[in-house]
Amino acid sequence: MVNETNEVDAPRVLRVALLGCGTVGAQVARTMLTQREDLAAKSGCELDLVGVAVHDAGRPRPGIPDELLTDDPEALVADGGADIVIELIGGIDPPRRLVLSAIDRGASVVTANKALLAKHGEEIYAAAEREGVDIYYEAAVAGAIPIVRPLRESLVGDQILTIMGIVNGTTNYILDKMTTEHQDFATALATAQRLGFAEADPTADIEGFDAASKAAILASLAYHSTVRIDDVYREGITGVTSEDIEAAESMGCVIRLLAIARLDEAGRIEVRVHPATVAREHPLAMVQGANNAIFVEAANAGRLMFMGPGAGGSPTASAVTGDLVTVARNRLRGVENPAHSVYQGLPVAPMSETRTRYHLRFQVVDQPGVLAAAAGLLAGNRVSIHSVHQHAPRADDRPTGTAVLSMVTHLAREADVMACIAELERTGYVHGQVRFMRAEGL
Amino acid sequence: MVNETNEVDAPRVLRVALLGCGTVGAQVARTMLTQREDLAAKSGCELDLVGVAVHDAGRPRPGIPDELLTDDPEALVADGGADIVIELIGGIDPPRRLVLSAIDRGASVVTANKALLAKHGEEIYAAAEREGVDIYYEAAVAGAIPIVRPLRESLVGDQILTIMGIVNGTTNYILDKMTTEHQDFATALATAQRLGFAEADPTADIEGFDAASKAAILASLAYHSTVRIDDVYREGITGVTSEDIEAAESMGCVIRLLAIARLDEAGRIEVRVHPATVAREHPLAMVQGANNAIFVEAANAGRLMFMGPGAGGSPTASAVTGDLVTVARNRLRGVENPAHSVYQGLPVAPMSETRTRYHLRFQVVDQPGVLAAAAGLLAGNRVSIHSVHQHAPRADDRPTGTAVLSMVTHLAREADVMACIAELERTGYVHGQVRFMRAEGL
Repeated sequence: MVNETNEVDAPRVLRVALLGCGTVGAQVARTMLTQREDLAAKSGCELDLVGVAVHDAGRPRPGIPDELLTDDPEALVADGGADIVIELIGGIDPPRRLVLSAIDRGASVVTANKALLAKHGEEIYAAAEREGVDIYYEAAVAGAIPIVRPLRESLVGDQILTIMGIVNGTTNYILDKMTTEHQDFATALATAQRLGFAEADPTADIEGFDAASKAAILASLAYHSTVRIDDVYREGITGVTSEDIEAAESMGCVIRLLAIARLDEAGRIEVRVHPATVAREHPLAMVQGANNAIFVEAANAGRLMFMGPGAGGSPTASAVTGDLVTVARNRLRGVENPAHSVYQGLPVAPMSETRTRYHLRFQVVDQPGVLAAAAGLLAGNRVSIHSVHQHAPRADDRPTGTAVLSMVTHLAREADVMACIAELERTGYVHGQVRFMRAEGL
Repeated sequence: MVNETNEVDAPRVLRVALLGCGTVGAQVARTMLTQREDLAAKSGCELDLVGVAVHDAGRPRPGIPDELLTDDPEALVADGGADIVIELIGGIDPPRRLVLSAIDRGASVVTANKALLAKHGEEIYAAAEREGVDIYYEAAVAGAIPIVRPLRESLVGDQILTIMGIVNGTTNYILDKMTTEHQDFATALATAQRLGFAEADPTADIEGFDAASKAAILASLAYHSTVRIDDVYREGITGVTSEDIEAAESMGCVIRLLAIARLDEAGRIEVRVHPATVAREHPLAMVQGANNAIFVEAANAGRLMFMGPGAGGSPTASAVTGDLVTVARNRLRGVENPAHSVYQGLPVAPMSETRTRYHLRFQVVDQPGVLAAAAGLLAGNRVSIHSVHQHAPRADDRPTGTAVLSMVTHLAREADVMACIAELERTGYVHGQVRFMRAEGL
């Protein structure tokens, strides 16, 4: 074997246990069974699938021999003698227990479980380091798009300034439908569910939990610090209205759910997930349907962008299989990848101190002095206005004698803008709610 | 140090020699000198810059101590005791000799030298494997865009179907100017030279040699086979006319210089560099100015795209520094990355057997039967027509009684299309040359 002439004592077979056999797991198992020789040539050794833990071991799985199936993942991990455990069950428990058990037994782990890593990453990385095993998770963020490895290795000699990504395909699909086909949120969600782009319970996606897990993982990697999901400011897309989409369009923008990790001026990590307006010309505005894209700005590398399918059985399986080969190569050579590094130990900035641009939109009494009053109110809160547009409200919801004020701010502090909104809503000249949307990528 | 608790015997200092101190080299040296602690934390050890080989050691380099400078790279490699040698001289010799000498002395090598690897990769990879050292070259293709590592690791468990990239910033800049500002080739080249996007001798870029080196490297990586620059079919952009650009525009396309590596139906590698039309909606059409982008289609991962600055001092230095940290981590652990793998050993398909789509454009005598005759000629050569458009020639070069025929073929064999063109030019009804452009990304 051409790769391995130097390691005469290297093991010729590595035992692999697979936990979970949904769309991704089944694809990984089939790849391992049908492409044995190819994976052996790439890894430098045979990869022997010793067991597949499933929910119902009685149900046959096409292409996977029945004798590999077990409904006892604990036993597979404890007694299977696996060198590598692939965890694709999802959720926090039992995966946390199983992954820690695998590590304790000296197995390296490949997982796609973003929720687990965003919540218990610290514990898991520490265990892997203690036991000298690998933990790889390229599939946890943006499916097959290589982003974990580029951040861990390719860009490790650089300083990451900003990561801004569309990391949840479901919400991008819904926002794209709302934009291009003028569907309202409920209709777009129902379409996504019918076509399999959204789950029956879509909460994790539409409320931004999934994106927040990924944001935590990306921020940890980029800033060599511990960032947990609870550190991530999170807003989903359930509050995005057709009017918000239209207002964004009229400014040459689209609305995307963004996961953002940034280094602020004080050396803290901003990490947040929320809908935001993005200019049509920005590469992130061009990401259609359920695709994902991650934009990275680094001090030396400049602006990089990674695009592709962010989910789905095959793409996720591709990322898992890539990790499997890498982990196998490492084990053959008796090494593990440098553990998750947290040497920078940067703090996370509170959302109230985040600085970005804002688009504010509200109805006012159409009389002299109102614009001046509103502008003065913002100035009093240290919010400077970049542009302002006043127009009549839409015909179907026009109270007599009102106008719509639409403002874009310069960079402003979140707390200051929230104070402006509260004050505006208390004035006599503003009707109803002040709508706002953060404006990114400018 | 949090990364290294398991390796108590690991060396605390690695010696690094830098060969070449142009824009990229100077940036790498400055990063090593000013960010010592950061790189040490990331690598797990001190990286000690022991020498910088330059052309003229008498000329001071801002930020680099004079005592590090030497004009004798051979001596630096032979006597410097370097653990890692960074080669940024460029060209084939002396770099080939220096890199082999470094490897023979047990040093790992980081290089950005695409020409060297595309010509002598086999010899260099074999030497590195024999000596058990690393050779890393992320910066050799597309600057700071991580593509080597994703192909070597992230996608290694997948099957690459197609790689199609804009990997030369100079030619993309020129073609973009010709498209958006209607400059002719000579003017666009002069603009690029004035602004530093093209060199005084632009041959390597505009004749496609640079892109061909990168195509060879990408094809080798994607298909685990030996592909040399001489295996790459190569056409530059010097023959692209304003009329070609206009004709492409009228079909909703732009012209890009593409580097393509594909697995053909017979299991051979197609590897070629030439101008091609790309539909405006294709992500590659959106790559502006001197940027690079690489589109990868894999069996499981689907369609991925990587974009960013493809050249320039800082982006290239970012990629080199990322490799430096990775190589240092490997050395600390006493391992090297699996050597360049050629286990698939696939042959390269001759250009004549490539199958793609073609756009043909030629002037014909405007009389009944001509379209039927031309269509019959193509059919006789097994070339099937997808669409045809006949229109009057441009006012300024209209011979009396002629029309322009513009045809797009279905997938056709290169040799068949070339035979059609030769036959068409010999008929009585075709005036002058048949212009053709390959059409990609459909």
